[in-house]
Amino acid sequence: MTLWGSALYSEPSDEHLRKLNDSIGFDRRLYAQDIAGSIAYARAIQAAGVITAGEADQIVSGLEQVKAEFESGAFVIGEGDEDIHTAVERRLTELIGAVGGKLHTGRSRNDQVATDFRLWTRDAIEDVRIQLGFLQAALIETAEKHIDSVMPGYTHMQPAQPITAAHWLMSFFWMLARDVERLNDALRRVNVSPLGAGALAGNPFGVDRAGLAQALGFREAAQNSLDAVADRDYAAETLFVFTMIGVHLSRLAEDVILYSNPSFGFIRLDDRYSTGSSMMPQKRNPDPMELARGKAGRLIGNLTGLLATLKGTPSTYNKDYQEDKEALFDSFDSLDLLLPVMTAIVKTLLLNPEKLKAALDPELLATDLADYLVKKGLPFRQAHHAAGAAVRKAAEQGIPLGDLALEDLRELSPLFEVDIRDVFDFEASVARRDAIGGTAPDAVREQIRAARAVMGSKS
Amino acid sequence: MTLWGSALYSEPSDEHLRKLNDSIGFDRRLYAQDIAGSIAYARAIQAAGVITAGEADQIVSGLEQVKAEFESGAFVIGEGDEDIHTAVERRLTELIGAVGGKLHTGRSRNDQVATDFRLWTRDAIEDVRIQLGFLQAALIETAEKHIDSVMPGYTHMQPAQPITAAHWLMSFFWMLARDVERLNDALRRVNVSPLGAGALAGNPFGVDRAGLAQALGFREAAQNSLDAVADRDYAAETLFVFTMIGVHLSRLAEDVILYSNPSFGFIRLDDRYSTGSSMMPQKRNPDPMELARGKAGRLIGNLTGLLATLKGTPSTYNKDYQEDKEALFDSFDSLDLLLPVMTAIVKTLLLNPEKLKAALDPELLATDLADYLVKKGLPFRQAHHAAGAAVRKAAEQGIPLGDLALEDLRELSPLFEVDIRDVFDFEASVARRDAIGGTAPDAVREQIRAARAVMGSKS
Amino acid sequence: MTLWGSALYSEPSDEHLRKLNDSIGFDRRLYAQDIAGSIAYARAIQAAGVITAGEADQIVSGLEQVKAEFESGAFVIGEGDEDIHTAVERRLTELIGAVGGKLHTGRSRNDQVATDFRLWTRDAIEDVRIQLGFLQAALIETAEKHIDSVMPGYTHMQPAQPITAAHWLMSFFWMLARDVERLNDALRRVNVSPLGAGALAGNPFGVDRAGLAQALGFREAAQNSLDAVADRDYAAETLFVFTMIGVHLSRLAEDVILYSNPSFGFIRLDDRYSTGSSMMPQKRNPDPMELARGKAGRLIGNLTGLLATLKGTPSTYNKDYQEDKEALFDSFDSLDLLLPVMTAIVKTLLLNPEKLKAALDPELLATDLADYLVKKGLPFRQAHHAAGAAVRKAAEQGIPLGDLALEDLRELSPLFEVDIRDVFDFEASVARRDAIGGTAPDAVREQIRAARAVMGSKS
Amino acid sequence: MTLWGSALYSEPSDEHLRKLNDSIGFDRRLYAQDIAGSIAYARAIQAAGVITAGEADQIVSGLEQVKAEFESGAFVIGEGDEDIHTAVERRLTELIGAVGGKLHTGRSRNDQVATDFRLWTRDAIEDVRIQLGFLQAALIETAEKHIDSVMPGYTHMQPAQPITAAHWLMSFFWMLARDVERLNDALRRVNVSPLGAGALAGNPFGVDRAGLAQALGFREAAQNSLDAVADRDYAAETLFVFTMIGVHLSRLAEDVILYSNPSFGFIRLDDRYSTGSSMMPQKRNPDPMELARGKAGRLIGNLTGLLATLKGTPSTYNKDYQEDKEALFDSFDSLDLLLPVMTAIVKTLLLNPEKLKAALDPELLATDLADYLVKKGLPFRQAHHAAGAAVRKAAEQGIPLGDLALEDLRELSPLFEVDIRDVFDFEASVARRDAIGGTAPDAVREQIRAARAVMGSKS
Repeated sequence: MTLWGSALYSEPSDEHLRKLNDSIGFDRRLYAQDIAGSIAYARAIQAAGVITAGEADQIVSGLEQVKAEFESGAFVIGEGDEDIHTAVERRLTELIGAVGGKLHTGRSRNDQVATDFRLWTRDAIEDVRIQLGFLQAALIETAEKHIDSVMPGYTHMQPAQPITAAHWLMSFFWMLARDVERLNDALRRVNVSPLGAGALAGNPFGVDRAGLAQALGFREAAQNSLDAVADRDYAAETLFVFTMIGVHLSRLAEDVILYSNPSFGFIRLDDRYSTGSSMMPQKRNPDPMELARGKAGRLIGNLTGLLATLKGTPSTYNKDYQEDKEALFDSFDSLDLLLPVMTAIVKTLLLNPEKLKAALDPELLATDLADYLVKKGLPFRQAHHAAGAAVRKAAEQGIPLGDLALEDLRELSPLFEVDIRDVFDFEASVARRDAIGGTAPDAVREQIRAARAVMGSKS
Repeated sequence: MTLWGSALYSEPSDEHLRKLNDSIGFDRRLYAQDIAGSIAYARAIQAAGVITAGEADQIVSGLEQVKAEFESGAFVIGEGDEDIHTAVERRLTELIGAVGGKLHTGRSRNDQVATDFRLWTRDAIEDVRIQLGFLQAALIETAEKHIDSVMPGYTHMQPAQPITAAHWLMSFFWMLARDVERLNDALRRVNVSPLGAGALAGNPFGVDRAGLAQALGFREAAQNSLDAVADRDYAAETLFVFTMIGVHLSRLAEDVILYSNPSFGFIRLDDRYSTGSSMMPQKRNPDPMELARGKAGRLIGNLTGLLATLKGTPSTYNKDYQEDKEALFDSFDSLDLLLPVMTAIVKTLLLNPEKLKAALDPELLATDLADYLVKKGLPFRQAHHAAGAAVRKAAEQGIPLGDLALEDLRELSPLFEVDIRDVFDFEASVARRDAIGGTAPDAVREQIRAARAVMGSKS
Repeated sequence: MTLWGSALYSEPSDEHLRKLNDSIGFDRRLYAQDIAGSIAYARAIQAAGVITAGEADQIVSGLEQVKAEFESGAFVIGEGDEDIHTAVERRLTELIGAVGGKLHTGRSRNDQVATDFRLWTRDAIEDVRIQLGFLQAALIETAEKHIDSVMPGYTHMQPAQPITAAHWLMSFFWMLARDVERLNDALRRVNVSPLGAGALAGNPFGVDRAGLAQALGFREAAQNSLDAVADRDYAAETLFVFTMIGVHLSRLAEDVILYSNPSFGFIRLDDRYSTGSSMMPQKRNPDPMELARGKAGRLIGNLTGLLATLKGTPSTYNKDYQEDKEALFDSFDSLDLLLPVMTAIVKTLLLNPEKLKAALDPELLATDLADYLVKKGLPFRQAHHAAGAAVRKAAEQGIPLGDLALEDLRELSPLFEVDIRDVFDFEASVARRDAIGGTAPDAVREQIRAARAVMGSKS
Repeated sequence: MTLWGSALYSEPSDEHLRKLNDSIGFDRRLYAQDIAGSIAYARAIQAAGVITAGEADQIVSGLEQVKAEFESGAFVIGEGDEDIHTAVERRLTELIGAVGGKLHTGRSRNDQVATDFRLWTRDAIEDVRIQLGFLQAALIETAEKHIDSVMPGYTHMQPAQPITAAHWLMSFFWMLARDVERLNDALRRVNVSPLGAGALAGNPFGVDRAGLAQALGFREAAQNSLDAVADRDYAAETLFVFTMIGVHLSRLAEDVILYSNPSFGFIRLDDRYSTGSSMMPQKRNPDPMELARGKAGRLIGNLTGLLATLKGTPSTYNKDYQEDKEALFDSFDSLDLLLPVMTAIVKTLLLNPEKLKAALDPELLATDLADYLVKKGLPFRQAHHAAGAAVRKAAEQGIPLGDLALEDLRELSPLFEVDIRDVFDFEASVARRDAIGGTAPDAVREQIRAARAVMGSKS
């Protein structure tokens, strides 16, 4: 039996409508939140004098029993249980009798579901935040092993300048640090109580909405009941932050995929985190990294879908909003699957020092060559031009840039002198970039200190 | 045990990776397609002399047994069954022994999964096409009851001109007719066989790919093996067509939602297709229509997500593509839930003739007023101006446009004469729009004939 | 001439590549930011001893001249000016000679464009925030005129309960209040300086990045140079917040469109904010509201597009990121066009009291009927049932719910007594919903006080 | 002056509304289509007897003059020209007087703009189709130079099996071939005439809509006027096909980006199609390829945005649809910029044979090793296992797979014999994959023949 019942309706719902309409298939996941919300509401209407202390006690203990049934697996979804709210109230009434029918006084599924879903989202954010912390810690940990490892840095996927491997790893730390900030910001807006907004117009039984909010750990009660029952911003914003996390993971994944291709060979994925082929016996595929990349697309889709759903809907609650849950559940589950694997991969990441060294071509120092001329007084734009000419000359001679004869260089600029040889030193190049945020080992040590401070401040 | 096995790998997969990687949770839905593909492949490698007729018979009858286990519910997913392909081959080998291990000769999961998913998509398109046909038939059927019912037509949601209700209903027929065309077009591209492409490079065992294609009812074999294993266009295109259908259903839903609001009151939803409120006893909510509108957002999200997933992936198969299936399954399931309900709602749609009539304001005939002047020789632009002035004058006098005195009209244009009264006739206005595609009952009868012809030609 | 020049390259760029690659068509909009960044950078390399004070003065005054040329319209984009950075440096060098070529020392377009675009985004956020403030103020102002106006509240677009018009208007205030919070949160992350990150590896000339950040009004310097040149989170996050605003405006627009349809007739749009038809002389279309609804789709597209662009890109700068600007420019421009119109419409909104009253059907009080029984001791679930039966009985008798005879009601529940008549009072119903956030005039007055407090705290 | 004029409206539009509403900034691009549509319409209302032959001649010659003004650049957009339709009619009336006001008889901007935009879309599709043909021809041309070039094929970006370079190039041919099919299919639906649908209800002047359609080269007249003015499916479908093309270009781009990284070194981009760095003198960036990748994101955004805009709009024309044009213009322009560059890059692509050869690791033949055992009778699953063990053994010995001693192999399977050496031949491996669509040179020659046939049949 549904909560909206048979009195007005002379014919039962069509079976196809039932299948389309029912949300119990996915919203049963909210049982704990639904029951927590109902317990708080029972106490609130007791405080308001709507029910007696004895009735409230009966309801609360009945709800606890329902919860226990869910947790033990004993709960049986009934024929008419179209959603989690109906299922819980139906079972409650079976357990404690007609007094169970008093729980819904002044409450609507509209404020109830919004409350449940906010409570769930709050937990989901907290879970993701904790897992991001593990990944951030793994990045720091692995970075610390590679403060002095020099590797090629790429822009446009073309060799650019030498960098330290720790600097590369730490670049992902900061992306995630922003994501953690975004989660915290989103949480403030998630953590607002719609309970007591009723169907749309507010509560006529003198319920203390501020007290209700407090009882459920919300920061405050929503200020407008029409908005409270229809606000799904928090779901959209959480989806956005989850998507941003997914985009960051996809970028880390892309690097790992590239660097574990043997032409690079910088990385060898641990056996536990790569998979083989059903046909090609030699394969060592970075499947989880590819899934990280692919799932970023999926997360984008979930966000887009909810925004499109919300767009253009009229005031207050519309059934369209039932589409909010599966999108957020799916994005959360995607991250919940991905994050532990990413963390493990970062922790067990092995960088191959020989391959890193082999990839260090002196052309990576062409900017240092230009900077050398700058330090001798040449305007950078001209120095850039001369260094470009040197690169070309070396290519024409078929020799590495560092092997170009001094006289050849002096044809390009008389400022070249014998100390030009010192430029061709990857470690020295890296060490020079020591301003805040630079790739020099000293700067990276400083960066890691700052990162640890950020981690500390978070908790 | 996985298909890619233990020889190369010294350590088992991490458990988190397994959870992330495994697709059996959703791809078991492909069991029938997987087995059909394997049976065809067994016969093809028999024909190529790779296995004997006896071995092929063993494999085929083993596969049929596996299928029977799936259909009876007896099949048990095993610990190592990471996907449907592994599950089927594992069980096959349990049933028929080592000869089962010959089935995968020259085949890879890359061409196998692409084959399975194309077979599934082919069926999904066919299902949706049939259901669209039912909805189109319902639109025609209900339209035929309302060929002479006049209602206000809106543009910009403002009263525009009188139209017939049949014309309104038929407007959705043509949207769906285009969708059916798109499904047919997509089907041509879905219906191409990747089987025999191997992992990426093609088949070295002389398998007859054209014969394989034919055996599975495909139109032809894919022309390039690298493309064949990576092509997910067909999934994206099917998602697009499904989304377009969803957008059309959302527009029909929007009209039904509006017209069943009592301020319009044109439509009363059948009890079986509306739902009540847990709190407000009088409610009769058009939930399925709101879900149709909301699910259009979800469909947009699934399409967007897959396109974002495909974008920028390198040549041949990448694990990212595993994300294709849940998106398409979900969009199909959404339509599969929605379409029967939409059809039933259209079939049982009751238009309230009194409410329709009450909404017919003479202002809807302002264009006819202008056309009247045009027929007396005034250029339309000036006639439009004069009719606008008449509307204003009537509003200032607080009377309906049709009640404006002739002398008042003649102040605006001397061309107004006593026959102007004839203009204020909604039926006549409608009847005048009798060019192809117009709202006149005669034109609508013609339109319905054309629609029936389209329906006929489709099958 | 490009900044990357001719020395290495033996052939000029293809003309088609030039057209594809050049960004000057849209990034010239960043001229002021580019010049501000360059002035700060010139002073920073002076402080680091890279250039002399005299050289810095020359560069700064040259840049100021370039800026003046842009502002007066005198600046001429040159043939080789592929982007704003090239255009400014080219012109600078024309004006002050080779010393202009020193400006780019240790800087790359990678950190430069990121700096420019963050400065622009900071201003864009500030502009939108101010305009949202105007709209919020207009909502409060119009709400205050309608604290006691009762209108039907809808859920699922079906009549639900009576509400006050002020409460309806204020519901949009809180959506926008969240958007303002989101803008502030985003701003913190926008307001971080990438300058000094170089191409990717950091600055080797001892530039004081913290000082640079301060000079440009940034909150801090980015902590990792690889991340700094590639971070486009701030653009994605700003796009998200802009999209959320667009979704909120689309919901307000939907209500206004519906309520200005004559079947509702609650609202009449001012002549200045509605438009007519080229053909139908009586039309008064809510075009700006429809555009608000449509542009929400466009904003969703811009967000989706950038997220899809960022997804899966490898570390550091990739040219793909050039796609960031047009998306954000377009979303900003869309809001910049929409917001003043929305504000004006809200300010000039006329609610038709007769139409509001006419729409108040006693069925809107069915919940109050159930609550009446609850107050007499009946559990809500049974009260809901009885009230539903009353609605049905009235409908069967063809009379308004409030006209049902007491004996008819008493057949449904013996708890009905003569005081049931008091329930059928829309003002009293509204007044009862006086908990925080309720629709009661007193609660709405409190709500407006809270809203004013939020507005005050924002600045 | 607007077309909807001053008679009804007592106050002019607000200036902000004007800026928001006006579309002349982008729809002036439709001038030729607008004039073509008007000429056809003038003749149609002449044929219907609404205007005389003389009036029609006047109108047609006036329109031709307006067109000439647009083409010469002489046309001046006037103050009140809110859109292209208004601008053209205003100018027409200036040129030929009040008779110009007769042109709009029975026509609305609703059917007019739909006609214009369909005509434009038809041309846009044709342009893209031609450019795709050039790119396909370039792929064939370059492929033909590389039928015998062997390179590593990758799946999951890990070395998989040897393939021919021609096969790799041709894989993109078939993606584009599907796109051409999709364009043709979309074109059928684009090429339908809405003209004569009026504002929504059809034409009351006996206009011959079928004749009108024919005069404008449309395939047929739209069958339902309500649908005709609101149908934007054709724009969405064209956006989808353009997006699919963008996704394909992004995949080609990704390969080129990867292969032109020196760790691969397979490709060297021509000077004309790569760009340098403002800071790093050695850079040779594949900018156009990165833009191809990035613009795929943008195209996804345009598609998503329009679908979100269309979703949930009520019947017939809504102003929301004004958002259709900029999305499609932008996607078309993006392809129009990209395609010539992609074609040129493919044409000038140089594959470095030494680098290709160097990347051929014997592990790429592990599948052939397994197939060897299969041919000796071992079930594939066991052969796969043995070959995997061989790969591992070689890795443990630190030697290439092909150098493993026969006795070592025989420990893994007694079926290994001295002829195993023949397996380690990349050309032979490739040549074995000679089924349809395989990578063998003979199969590729066949594939190219098929491709040429497809190209031929297209025109």
